[in-house]
Amino acid sequence: MYNAVICRYHEIAIKGNNRREFERQLIGNMRYLLHQGGLDSKVRHIRGRIWVEKACPEEDFSAGELNLHREVLRRVFGLESFSPAKLVKPEMDSITRAVRAFAPEIFAPHLKDGNRAVFRIRARRSNKDFPLRSKEIEILLAGVMEELFGPDRLKIDLENAPITIGVEVRDEFAAVFAESFDAPGGLPAGSSGRVLVLLSGGIDSPVAAYEMMKRGCQTDFLTFHSAPYTPPESVDKVRRLAEILNGYQYPGKLWCCNLAGLQREIRDRCVERDRTVLYRRAMLRIASGIAARTKCGAIVTGEAVGQVASQTLKNMATIDSAVKDLILRPLCGYDKTESIRVAESIGTYRTSIIHAPDSCTVFAPVSPATSLPERAAEREEEKIPDYAGWISRLVDETLAGDGNDGKIPSGDCETRN
Amino acid sequence: MYNAVICRYHEIAIKGNNRREFERQLIGNMRYLLHQGGLDSKVRHIRGRIWVEKACPEEDFSAGELNLHREVLRRVFGLESFSPAKLVKPEMDSITRAVRAFAPEIFAPHLKDGNRAVFRIRARRSNKDFPLRSKEIEILLAGVMEELFGPDRLKIDLENAPITIGVEVRDEFAAVFAESFDAPGGLPAGSSGRVLVLLSGGIDSPVAAYEMMKRGCQTDFLTFHSAPYTPPESVDKVRRLAEILNGYQYPGKLWCCNLAGLQREIRDRCVERDRTVLYRRAMLRIASGIAARTKCGAIVTGEAVGQVASQTLKNMATIDSAVKDLILRPLCGYDKTESIRVAESIGTYRTSIIHAPDSCTVFAPVSPATSLPERAAEREEEKIPDYAGWISRLVDETLAGDGNDGKIPSGDCETRN
Repeated sequence: MYNAVICRYHEIAIKGNNRREFERQLIGNMRYLLHQGGLDSKVRHIRGRIWVEKACPEEDFSAGELNLHREVLRRVFGLESFSPAKLVKPEMDSITRAVRAFAPEIFAPHLKDGNRAVFRIRARRSNKDFPLRSKEIEILLAGVMEELFGPDRLKIDLENAPITIGVEVRDEFAAVFAESFDAPGGLPAGSSGRVLVLLSGGIDSPVAAYEMMKRGCQTDFLTFHSAPYTPPESVDKVRRLAEILNGYQYPGKLWCCNLAGLQREIRDRCVERDRTVLYRRAMLRIASGIAARTKCGAIVTGEAVGQVASQTLKNMATIDSAVKDLILRPLCGYDKTESIRVAESIGTYRTSIIHAPDSCTVFAPVSPATSLPERAAEREEEKIPDYAGWISRLVDETLAGDGNDGKIPSGDCETRN
Repeated sequence: MYNAVICRYHEIAIKGNNRREFERQLIGNMRYLLHQGGLDSKVRHIRGRIWVEKACPEEDFSAGELNLHREVLRRVFGLESFSPAKLVKPEMDSITRAVRAFAPEIFAPHLKDGNRAVFRIRARRSNKDFPLRSKEIEILLAGVMEELFGPDRLKIDLENAPITIGVEVRDEFAAVFAESFDAPGGLPAGSSGRVLVLLSGGIDSPVAAYEMMKRGCQTDFLTFHSAPYTPPESVDKVRRLAEILNGYQYPGKLWCCNLAGLQREIRDRCVERDRTVLYRRAMLRIASGIAARTKCGAIVTGEAVGQVASQTLKNMATIDSAVKDLILRPLCGYDKTESIRVAESIGTYRTSIIHAPDSCTVFAPVSPATSLPERAAEREEEKIPDYAGWISRLVDETLAGDGNDGKIPSGDCETRN
């Protein structure tokens, strides 16, 4: 039925960007993700559209292949929408034959229970040698539909038809299609440079990663665990989240840092209710060190203002001031319900809600500070002998992969002091 | 027909927050915004719901009053949804009479063209002395509907009915309602502290302001103009945008800063293609000074990664490094199409697209730098005599209101050097 997929991207997405660069990156990403999906389709770029074609153009895609294409293309940033299509010779006979071939399947659900199917035909013609004009193609095909289903079963609505049959007549070929699927929009993955996402096992940080990927950022991930106080499942869960997110890009690295040693120092030497902010400052400092060594241009977090007690403006400012890096918080204006909606649509929600303790909950204070000034945080950090040494050792260990497995070296897992 | 409005808020919104504080702020904001809307309704809070009631409870709202309530309540952050309702005595007779009174208007559009109206009834009962159980109320009212419209014209669907009649039976009263309207969700305006939004006349920055207001931030606004190089209309436009945004909160201040003098220095002394980044760094420094003096806990910008040439990660990092403040960029992960959608829904879009030059376009370089390192920006700034003095003078002038009108002191408006 179909031997190609038409892929569309918004002009608006590339305003102010280099169009050629955008298209080159987009097509490269499509080829990579299709290949990763086990598909050998060809990707061609012809005047403002990208065409994915069956490697052997005489054959149609199987239903399974079409599903796989849908699965892959809905993960390609930069694409706005796509439609399975039949490419035929640019002749009216071939076009009619192709529309006749897929129309029964498209119209069937709308004709059931004796209903009238409401449809429209939209033709575009860039091949000016084609003997019919767009309007004439539309009238001719509407006649074919009436012949096929009977005029009493159909109704044409040019504004709000649930069925739209599209025809594009080009110099080299004509394409007919009837279904359109949403792609995520945004900029091609990798076109905006590299960022480091602080990835916890929660709902928000995978969504934050997704939002920045959507703006063209190639993302690496950094997670913190606290073995032996957090179980290995905590890191396993984050690893699964990173795998889901890597389905949208050339896979980014997942760095795993064991924060337990420094957390013990903070527990033993600092004011209890300041711990949450002190952990977050340490995490950012480690992230900053890793970002510098791996050439990431920004640190990304899932923070939302007012989401939890520690995310007051004051605490966020005190955490922010620990490093000089650019910190992007794409969810800072999100409601929890909005994060959940995105998490569900990108496939991370079901993994995120699996219960597993994370570093932030280790020795967590009963009543965390909600408004810790920067100076007070610095004073607490000064109580820790060789605090700077701790940070640089943890950066080194993380980059060397020493904390990478999150396995418990010895003893049981405990999550509270 | 209706003498009250039921207002709902999500439990999830107040997780980790102080519930009482959330409710107190929400109700205070509702009273303020209703009053501003010229309404004298009462706002009562009874167990997890907020009720807006006609000041004289025996009368119903007029259609105009109901519209006004809708207009106001869709701007109350913290509310999730609301329904115009009829409050009656908690007796089955009164409930039935109220449902009979509004049902014809609710069912009419669904019954036209001989269609069956698909509906459901949802009863809740917190008054356990009420003689009927929830299920029994629902069955009884479904019977009343059949009596009213005829059983052949109706169909009950408990899952996806376009008409839902709600009944809540409380100790003091019963409420019946049929329509539900979306409110913006989020946290009550002002519950998260004060922020300063860099407001240009564009599409993005008003949306950024809205997103942070939604997370409970009380927002003040800072705009830059470049009189005589920008016309007074530029500031007028921003003033209109601030007025629209102030419809969602206790009005925030709009500070106006004339950047023309410093821009002339940058034009005359610094590398041309670095101007855009140097302007943005100066703007942030001035914002930082104003935020400190007006006790704003963060600076908010409408930046999105990769939106325009100047919004590369590298440029954003160089701009960010000009100040130590917490900078929130709620749109950093947005596509332009997403910003436009929000701008349309909050009512700023039509004003934003009116053409007016802004400060960023004054002496704008033909080919702006896309990757200016921090050190290079600092070197350019060192070329400007008494750069720090410029910043602190502009902060003082802005707070004193000297640049407040954006009027051209003399000469014509010119936008290019």
